[in-house]
Amino acid sequence: MELSRQSRFHAVARQIGHTFNGEIRIGGNYVSAVRNGNDLYISGQIPRVNDTVMVTGRVGEAVTLEQAQYAAKLCTMRALAVLIQQTGSLDHVKKVLRINVFVNSAADFTQQSEVADGASEVLYAVLGDAGAHTRTSVGVYQLPKGASVEVDMLVALEP
Amino acid sequence: MELSRQSRFHAVARQIGHTFNGEIRIGGNYVSAVRNGNDLYISGQIPRVNDTVMVTGRVGEAVTLEQAQYAAKLCTMRALAVLIQQTGSLDHVKKVLRINVFVNSAADFTQQSEVADGASEVLYAVLGDAGAHTRTSVGVYQLPKGASVEVDMLVALEP
Amino acid sequence: MELSRQSRFHAVARQIGHTFNGEIRIGGNYVSAVRNGNDLYISGQIPRVNDTVMVTGRVGEAVTLEQAQYAAKLCTMRALAVLIQQTGSLDHVKKVLRINVFVNSAADFTQQSEVADGASEVLYAVLGDAGAHTRTSVGVYQLPKGASVEVDMLVALEP
Repeated sequence: MELSRQSRFHAVARQIGHTFNGEIRIGGNYVSAVRNGNDLYISGQIPRVNDTVMVTGRVGEAVTLEQAQYAAKLCTMRALAVLIQQTGSLDHVKKVLRINVFVNSAADFTQQSEVADGASEVLYAVLGDAGAHTRTSVGVYQLPKGASVEVDMLVALEP
Repeated sequence: MELSRQSRFHAVARQIGHTFNGEIRIGGNYVSAVRNGNDLYISGQIPRVNDTVMVTGRVGEAVTLEQAQYAAKLCTMRALAVLIQQTGSLDHVKKVLRINVFVNSAADFTQQSEVADGASEVLYAVLGDAGAHTRTSVGVYQLPKGASVEVDMLVALEP
Repeated sequence: MELSRQSRFHAVARQIGHTFNGEIRIGGNYVSAVRNGNDLYISGQIPRVNDTVMVTGRVGEAVTLEQAQYAAKLCTMRALAVLIQQTGSLDHVKKVLRINVFVNSAADFTQQSEVADGASEVLYAVLGDAGAHTRTSVGVYQLPKGASVEVDMLVALEP
């Protein structure tokens, strides 16, 4: 029997070592998700667990590719946790339309796609075929609170 | 009696010290807004008033947080001015789905969220609850014409 | 008689010196396009032809404005090639809603809009009025594989 998306979400959470059960708080004067029809827009997520940003610094300098992939997974799990908060479960996801992956990069670090693979891996692991998505990954100069990675997401829900 | 959105737009414009009454011109070979159904996409706005970019340079070096927040407000007011040009008023805004805030950052400047709060503040001040939005803010290495901030926007209009 | 979009696509391809006939492969664990209703999301494209990234390095340092504009054209043609793969032709394009143009920039390079004009020019040349689009162009610190430019796209198709 195939595992439910929720079970797979918790399996990934255990691998990563966090529960993602608490409320996802955001820092500023905005909201973590806005639904318009069946489209759910999710704000940019940094690899924060409670009040701690778990991975900070430039990838390719202070931070390795592996640590950055872990950060990308954390961001993506946070985005999915926001989705669960908004819609009650992961069962209403029809498609993931787009993710943007911003990587806090060293001057000569060019593996932004490989970092973003961490995010993509989580989406496939949790959502299966519905996790197929378009992606844009770029290397930025800094991120809020010095985070190593930031991921935002646009999801289509079942009507 | 609650003030109209248009009144609040002009109140913010007065605080900022510009009218935003003129036509919003853009530099390149593209358009400032495209409507698809009830979704209105607005091009990235820099803090330009007529032909002058009001705030240029890296935030955290040449530019303070406060100046950058002012720049974010200018960008956001420009985006709302584009919206008024396109739809005749602010009365058709149902929701602000997403804003992206790009901050021209110093190497160690990590308050991109605080800069973006300037944009968010304008949206709430002008649109009230309809101004709730998702947000992604990142620190970039340069922006067109050396602008300190660039903001783009996606708005859902009433049918 | 007006040339078809397909003819104009091939005319631009000849100018650029590549056919864009092969399959567009992508590097990571994601897809090159996702369709939701009539919206087609296209992943970020770098100026790659087969397995070679044709233009790499920072614009304003190793790379000139003209080379960067050429790179932006390549990225945009790749995105249109993805669109053809997905929908069979260019005839179903109703509007180009948004492009994002990320320019791998030198510290003091501020002509990101001029680079993005390369992308806009291709859209108008191939799609005519349907190529009108909103645009956000920013200067980033690095891009996947050291590419000089990356472009993503959102297109509205005819129902």
